[in-house]
Amino acid sequence: MEALVRETVLKNDVEGPIRAIGGLGANSYFKNSVYQKLDVKSLSSASNRTICLADFGCAVGPNTFTSLQSLIDIVKKKYLSQFPNEPMPEFQVFFNDQPSNDFNTLFRSLPPDREYFAAGVPGSFHGRVFPKSSLHVVQSNYALHWLSKVPESLVDKNSPAWNKGKIHYAGASDEVLKAYRERWAEDLNNFLNAREEIVPGGMLIVIMPSIPDGMPYSELANGILYSSFESTLLHMSKRGIISEDQVDAFNLPIYAAPPGEFAAVVEKNGCFDIEAIGLTNPAPWLTDDVHVDMKEYVRHIRAPMEGMFTKHFPNEIVDEMFEQLLVNKLPKVFDKMERAYKDKIQSYYVLQRK
Amino acid sequence: MEALVRETVLKNDVEGPIRAIGGLGANSYFKNSVYQKLDVKSLSSASNRTICLADFGCAVGPNTFTSLQSLIDIVKKKYLSQFPNEPMPEFQVFFNDQPSNDFNTLFRSLPPDREYFAAGVPGSFHGRVFPKSSLHVVQSNYALHWLSKVPESLVDKNSPAWNKGKIHYAGASDEVLKAYRERWAEDLNNFLNAREEIVPGGMLIVIMPSIPDGMPYSELANGILYSSFESTLLHMSKRGIISEDQVDAFNLPIYAAPPGEFAAVVEKNGCFDIEAIGLTNPAPWLTDDVHVDMKEYVRHIRAPMEGMFTKHFPNEIVDEMFEQLLVNKLPKVFDKMERAYKDKIQSYYVLQRK
Repeated sequence: MEALVRETVLKNDVEGPIRAIGGLGANSYFKNSVYQKLDVKSLSSASNRTICLADFGCAVGPNTFTSLQSLIDIVKKKYLSQFPNEPMPEFQVFFNDQPSNDFNTLFRSLPPDREYFAAGVPGSFHGRVFPKSSLHVVQSNYALHWLSKVPESLVDKNSPAWNKGKIHYAGASDEVLKAYRERWAEDLNNFLNAREEIVPGGMLIVIMPSIPDGMPYSELANGILYSSFESTLLHMSKRGIISEDQVDAFNLPIYAAPPGEFAAVVEKNGCFDIEAIGLTNPAPWLTDDVHVDMKEYVRHIRAPMEGMFTKHFPNEIVDEMFEQLLVNKLPKVFDKMERAYKDKIQSYYVLQRK
Repeated sequence: MEALVRETVLKNDVEGPIRAIGGLGANSYFKNSVYQKLDVKSLSSASNRTICLADFGCAVGPNTFTSLQSLIDIVKKKYLSQFPNEPMPEFQVFFNDQPSNDFNTLFRSLPPDREYFAAGVPGSFHGRVFPKSSLHVVQSNYALHWLSKVPESLVDKNSPAWNKGKIHYAGASDEVLKAYRERWAEDLNNFLNAREEIVPGGMLIVIMPSIPDGMPYSELANGILYSSFESTLLHMSKRGIISEDQVDAFNLPIYAAPPGEFAAVVEKNGCFDIEAIGLTNPAPWLTDDVHVDMKEYVRHIRAPMEGMFTKHFPNEIVDEMFEQLLVNKLPKVFDKMERAYKDKIQSYYVLQRK
């Protein structure tokens, strides 16, 4: 069930029936490009020989633990190959997310046998949250598709990007898509600028939901899902449960940028070289022969998506919406979602700080 | 109401009627000794010119914020005096406490206008929680009196230190006092060893509840308080609400070491020089003319102390104990507590890493 299921699974429930392979595990080419480009000599030049890693948008685990361990393993391997006779540096790992993240749960579920010193860092990654040049290898998994805010023009009746009767850019006008794209590009640029926290030569690895350049988002399962949310809400407004204005004022703050747009922002920004870039299928085991249980699917997507809705609608409206989605909308489109394009809807990037 | 009130107020409720001045604020001699000994040249030699501070046993604020800011102010002043023409380094502040600490509350109450990058570090400070030589100036306020565990001999019927019918060393046998002292000394030694996290020349500032060397703890208000808990519990066991064994199996895991014992551990440990040491009155405004409301006092002490009891007794027993304390025990001893010795029951130490 595409990127969204992967995201759900990754962030909330690795033990669920829909499993995903965390972080770098799935892609050996990707792994190799990190390994090749890693300059451990420059990383270990810090006076105390500590290698500092960070995860931007870590949530509460456990995927942040497995993907960071996977990064540490790469660093260690490279270090051993370059300095076979030197003692291994110590590792410090920083877990970053919004201050509203549940760091208590994160801290209490840290792997007891971890080989690193752990710290939590609250704050928006669109701004600075670390001292300059204090990080060596950082990652951000399934976090950079979140917009810092919904573009104002989407809710401005006088704007050509007014997103009336819609809640996302899937199936919306070109102006709406442009407003989303520009907000996301500015957010990524801010993210990259703030990452002067990474030492020159340090690595930044990003995995996020994506789409091939030029493909409309409505061809993806998530696009169909968002349209189902949309029509559920509109139907509820027709029944008088919510007002039309309430629906018009709501837009999902997520943008699954295609690699071309990501690369363009990085190049314009100028602080990083792109060492690897690509699109993958995040759930290759979901072939035409494997079917996902619809109820299970809704349970999976509800956890990470619910918060977007409850910020805007009362809880009972959100309950009703998910109920209607399951009973009335999804049954009509679920086959279509399962058949939707899913081959290259996750992008990965390996960047190196200049 | 002495160290305990100060602790309570410091850790939980600065807005309460019993105010306390956080950290270094109260003692200018203390402040000066930190300022004098601070070697900012060695601190700012890190490759990225960041100065790293930490608070060991930070709780949830707000006192950790004011006392750390006070430390940062000293570092800045010293830096400006030594390098008037150089840009100020960046500051990174680490808040450490047990993984059970409420870091969510801490993170959400961080000062919005803070001049530092904040991070939370979960883990026991009796062991390593940071990389080697990664910290420059650290503090621990009202945390080093907590024992890592209650000495086993206190609950061993065959030991001369069996603490039958008692819950603390106040008014107990010399063997009990010795068991507490040795446990605490070993804990402090472990704490100091783990602080190889501090760079050579870095500073460690400790404030903790204390007592003049040689004075029995029963002469302090806290000693009287602990004995009141004790007799309340014993009375409850006589009424059959709890068993005598339950009381015998319980001991408060706190030890207010006198400065002589602290200094002896530091000297034997050998990793730090003592640059300043002293005893103060933590609440000089509590003169004979100022009276504390008893109900208010119980409310204040309950918050930080309750956890020790609820780990051992069911909640309803703890409720009953605090109720009995307020109704039956404290009225008989509260005058005595207010008159008890309170002049030098807080110790401070400024240590410099060799």
